[in-house]
Amino acid sequence: MKNHIVIDMGGTRLKIGFFRDTELIKCKVVSSCSQENFENTIRIFDAEIQSLIESQGERSIDGIGLSMPGIIDTKANKILSINDKYSDAVSFDLNAWAKEHWNCDLVTENDARAALVGEWQQGAGKGIDNLVMMTLGTGIGGAALIEGKLLYGKNFQAGCLGGHFCIDFQGEMCNCGSKGCVETQGSSWVLPNLAKAGNYPVEGVSFKKLFDDRRSGNQAAADILKGCMDAWSACAINLIHAYDPEMLIIGGGVMKSADLILPEIRTWVEKYAWTPWGKVAVKQAGLEDTAALYGMNYLLITN
Amino acid sequence: MKNHIVIDMGGTRLKIGFFRDTELIKCKVVSSCSQENFENTIRIFDAEIQSLIESQGERSIDGIGLSMPGIIDTKANKILSINDKYSDAVSFDLNAWAKEHWNCDLVTENDARAALVGEWQQGAGKGIDNLVMMTLGTGIGGAALIEGKLLYGKNFQAGCLGGHFCIDFQGEMCNCGSKGCVETQGSSWVLPNLAKAGNYPVEGVSFKKLFDDRRSGNQAAADILKGCMDAWSACAINLIHAYDPEMLIIGGGVMKSADLILPEIRTWVEKYAWTPWGKVAVKQAGLEDTAALYGMNYLLITN
Repeated sequence: MKNHIVIDMGGTRLKIGFFRDTELIKCKVVSSCSQENFENTIRIFDAEIQSLIESQGERSIDGIGLSMPGIIDTKANKILSINDKYSDAVSFDLNAWAKEHWNCDLVTENDARAALVGEWQQGAGKGIDNLVMMTLGTGIGGAALIEGKLLYGKNFQAGCLGGHFCIDFQGEMCNCGSKGCVETQGSSWVLPNLAKAGNYPVEGVSFKKLFDDRRSGNQAAADILKGCMDAWSACAINLIHAYDPEMLIIGGGVMKSADLILPEIRTWVEKYAWTPWGKVAVKQAGLEDTAALYGMNYLLITN
Repeated sequence: MKNHIVIDMGGTRLKIGFFRDTELIKCKVVSSCSQENFENTIRIFDAEIQSLIESQGERSIDGIGLSMPGIIDTKANKILSINDKYSDAVSFDLNAWAKEHWNCDLVTENDARAALVGEWQQGAGKGIDNLVMMTLGTGIGGAALIEGKLLYGKNFQAGCLGGHFCIDFQGEMCNCGSKGCVETQGSSWVLPNLAKAGNYPVEGVSFKKLFDDRRSGNQAAADILKGCMDAWSACAINLIHAYDPEMLIIGGGVMKSADLILPEIRTWVEKYAWTPWGKVAVKQAGLEDTAALYGMNYLLITN
């Protein structure tokens, strides 16, 4: 019997879970001041890990799985690139932390890859070895599984840059320094610009607000969302053309409006994906909040 | 010592070569009526193979390598999808042909993948195990090599659809049935449309003519080519973001104007590719006309 701690340092919410073999025994959202850097966040998790271990009547754990929204060298457990908030993570020695602090194995992974593994093992993609994932949220994440193997590439970037496929080659600059990325047409950070251009109140604009307004018949909201959904659909096409999957799984906070989003993307994929062999299934993520936790536990088990 | 016949049924030219181990002993362009279907083309090659074998003083060969511009099940040596001209290839039994007619092994591959393997072994990408290729011609082909392995995907499409990345999500319909593909902005088949829109003579428009006119200071030609090169650059970004290579190799007939094309794409890649680890090298194909032949021979040797 193996006891594992899994941590998901997602874009907006921090989660921690305790697995006994394949069973998620306990799962908790951890609150943190939004300004905490990586080292302080790890200290917060240290206390949470200790309390979880004790609550389960254990004295130690067999492994820790950590997923993060960045580019991660999973062989060396090194964070290569991450957002500004956690920029100190790049020089943090994770292996030493796991070994010296918790005397256990460590597995690290990009959070979209972790979520995809969770969906593959326990969620929407169960039993399907060729999957792509697209997570819609503050940014747009992605991951690809080909013949039962995560795609990494030379620098651990392959599959993860779905939100930075160029879909508008004469378009706007992106946060990432590239041009016409999917995120420039449909992500939380670009909503103020889209609102301004679409005669919609900029103040407090969010996907939630836009979808609520659309449901109440607001045409400006509908138009802005149509543009976003077209961009996500084009992203879906590029993921399909790039990685040749059987199924596209869509997750992320925005999918609370899956009833409006899924039919749009599904129609676009059925119409525009070049797949002479048949049709790519388009599904909503099945686990959502816990996908990355399940994924990290699987990666610990198979490590 | 192994004797191999390699055949490249490219979009416009048919080539055949004779290899002794890794040495290309003889290489020939085969003429064929442009209306020949696949079966007739194979019969033409039968005569060429026989004549090549005899010219080398041999009585048999150890293997045939065949590359084609289509989606190919390389495990079963079955052509899954190909252009109309060769549509009869889908039901042609290639294994039986090689076995019964030539009593030898057969290896098949998509032509862009074959060219990439050639460039990896003997050309611009020698010694580099993470490569992407983009071939600019009638259409736009692509292929990806990750950690020394060709990328295939579930249905043998992964890596090959570079020309059908969506780079213009509100754009025009493509030949392939998709929308806003790279090919809708920069391939031979779309040139008449681009010429019309760009006040350039539609009659006889070709990349060669456009580049010649640009060199003579024709502004309409320069503007049309600028659009094409921007589209190819966006395609390059998508290949890089999708597959995380160390080097992008660009081939195809249009690269006769590499002096004008390479600097444009290289500048765009240096400016817009999201590669925190460093810079992706952008190189012209080194073998060009024989890349697919070298590639097929390597695949035969390692089969």
